[in-house]
Amino acid sequence: MEVYVDNNATTKVDEDVLNAMLPYLKESFANPSSLYDSGKKTRKAVNAARSNVAKMLNAEEKEIIFTASATESNVTAIMSAARNSNGKKRIITSKLEHASILETMNYLETQGFDIVYLDVDDKGRISTEDFKKAINGDTFLVAMMLANNELGNIYPIKEFCQIAHENNILFHCDCTQAVGKIKVDVKELGVDTLSFSGHKIHAPKGVAVLYVKEGTPYTPLIFGHQENNRRGGTENVPYIIGLGKAAEKIVEDNFQSIEKVKELRDYFEEQIKSKLDDVHIYGDVDNRIPNTSNIAFLNANGNELAIILEASNISLSNGSACNTTEPKPSDVLVACHANLKDYFPIRVSFDSYNTKEQVDYFINKLVLNVNMLRRKNNGNSN
Amino acid sequence: MEVYVDNNATTKVDEDVLNAMLPYLKESFANPSSLYDSGKKTRKAVNAARSNVAKMLNAEEKEIIFTASATESNVTAIMSAARNSNGKKRIITSKLEHASILETMNYLETQGFDIVYLDVDDKGRISTEDFKKAINGDTFLVAMMLANNELGNIYPIKEFCQIAHENNILFHCDCTQAVGKIKVDVKELGVDTLSFSGHKIHAPKGVAVLYVKEGTPYTPLIFGHQENNRRGGTENVPYIIGLGKAAEKIVEDNFQSIEKVKELRDYFEEQIKSKLDDVHIYGDVDNRIPNTSNIAFLNANGNELAIILEASNISLSNGSACNTTEPKPSDVLVACHANLKDYFPIRVSFDSYNTKEQVDYFINKLVLNVNMLRRKNNGNSN
Repeated sequence: MEVYVDNNATTKVDEDVLNAMLPYLKESFANPSSLYDSGKKTRKAVNAARSNVAKMLNAEEKEIIFTASATESNVTAIMSAARNSNGKKRIITSKLEHASILETMNYLETQGFDIVYLDVDDKGRISTEDFKKAINGDTFLVAMMLANNELGNIYPIKEFCQIAHENNILFHCDCTQAVGKIKVDVKELGVDTLSFSGHKIHAPKGVAVLYVKEGTPYTPLIFGHQENNRRGGTENVPYIIGLGKAAEKIVEDNFQSIEKVKELRDYFEEQIKSKLDDVHIYGDVDNRIPNTSNIAFLNANGNELAIILEASNISLSNGSACNTTEPKPSDVLVACHANLKDYFPIRVSFDSYNTKEQVDYFINKLVLNVNMLRRKNNGNSN
Repeated sequence: MEVYVDNNATTKVDEDVLNAMLPYLKESFANPSSLYDSGKKTRKAVNAARSNVAKMLNAEEKEIIFTASATESNVTAIMSAARNSNGKKRIITSKLEHASILETMNYLETQGFDIVYLDVDDKGRISTEDFKKAINGDTFLVAMMLANNELGNIYPIKEFCQIAHENNILFHCDCTQAVGKIKVDVKELGVDTLSFSGHKIHAPKGVAVLYVKEGTPYTPLIFGHQENNRRGGTENVPYIIGLGKAAEKIVEDNFQSIEKVKELRDYFEEQIKSKLDDVHIYGDVDNRIPNTSNIAFLNANGNELAIILEASNISLSNGSACNTTEPKPSDVLVACHANLKDYFPIRVSFDSYNTKEQVDYFINKLVLNVNMLRRKNNGNSN
């Protein structure tokens, strides 16, 4: 049996999504900027996809820009805000943001910007008081995610956004791990810009969205006439069509599938806790996206577990930074002051493609291997 | 019969390219950053594609960065040079560059950079003397294309690059219209950075390359750990595999196919000139890429012709700016001081998918409709 439980990293392309894309990888290949009929057809298809994405986010079509990655969307939103800051220098973000946000902040620091990285508590929560205190008259942007990729934590973006707006500060929200898992309604959240990518919702890797609320000051990152002069480069028509189909399916599904995913995740955690002692679940466990479990076992290191489980065809992430083969703990876990010596976690992220049988197989192998590692480690320490 | 002769705009995805991609849109979907086996497999496939692209360009693998468009590659190269200019302010470019270059220059002008846009003669040629005169001690970058998308002109990049380097100036070359049509050898050209996109060589829209010569100062445009910290965003594995296959086929073909394309293009122009009077071919006709014909007919406007030919299932570009439905002449033609009142061209760009039968059909329809428009226009003026 193969068990893929690393869906916060990437998801498999949905069959309907692939089938929607294929004509645009074959006969319908015209450039949407072209004036002849086949070009007009691809343009129309791109705009239908835009309409589906807008509908999913409760946004207007003209507020949707297609990009190549949530990373590109994040960098674009932040650099655009920085280029339109009217001399203001402060940006507030958190220590738990995605690398694309943090590395853009690092760059802006070299350009004289003043970046405040909010601390988090041991559950990865951000304090509203800390946030309010970080705001000063020089602040022009807040960049915070709706849901964390490692812990699954959901943040009170609506509340933070209101506070930002009371202080005339723009709000950018990375919703990459939230879309499809919880409701993401731009009007309800109130954010000015928002990002997510296709490959977390069963569209391919290489297509994403930047939402820009109408009226928000905007300078492109990639210059060119496409996307209404907001993002240059010939449109990736097949993937945009795929993303449109994925959005359409999310709207149709209306969070029915994710309910089942939550049941699987909760079943997994209950079973594990009933079969093993000294289990720790990281994050804000009562306020998480429904598919994520960042789980650790005393005396059974997540790095070792991930490697051992791979031999049983179980694919998941460990608590390490994803860009390295060295077992350096992730910035998120470090920010939470996690006790990584004793509890180095694995990250399990389920999705609707996972079956009960897979989860049972996974539980079985996990329990077996945690016990095996514990015996080995106890043996070593004797 | 359908005749697609707009291959400088985009090309159909090659069947072998699509077949190489499909497994990565289906079962082999793992993120190449992942540490489990399926992730390692996609990483290996991405690097094999990188090897094929490097081989095609006579570059090193580590000099190849995958991006989402030649536009992104162009903007990245120029912005990187500007961010590493050590206070120098002058960039030299030409009036014939692609919009992605010119719009980036427009942005940099607003940031205090001094952009020199070299003039061209009526054939679209750039004078070496003009270029040398534009260089001053404040110059840090030259951005010029190897082949022009509208005229097909090939520019003496090797010579220009030598002049730039004698003056310690970086050279960026947009090779989007050259790759696959003429030899593009980075060591022979000597350029520091170079761009091209997949969709002009029968890979899909949405994948491209930025070549960065080892040792060239570099700051990413899109921050993140992927592509060796040079371009963030989860890798578009399927399209990268496709681009690798397209590059492999170009190397294998060794410019055999393009010889046949040149025969078709030359046959087309000879036939048209033998069947019609007052034909003008724009550009540096003796020094063009082998597939392009920018051709105009007295008293038969290219905008009207393009629309009429579409009714016969012939797809091509006219001499208008590609980003508008208004018949505003292209910047390239304006820069050449083209006599657009009398000779407003169509742009015909062949490729190896075109057959002799298609070209004969096209010639027939073109002659018929030029004569029809001429009769109509003469009638109107009487």
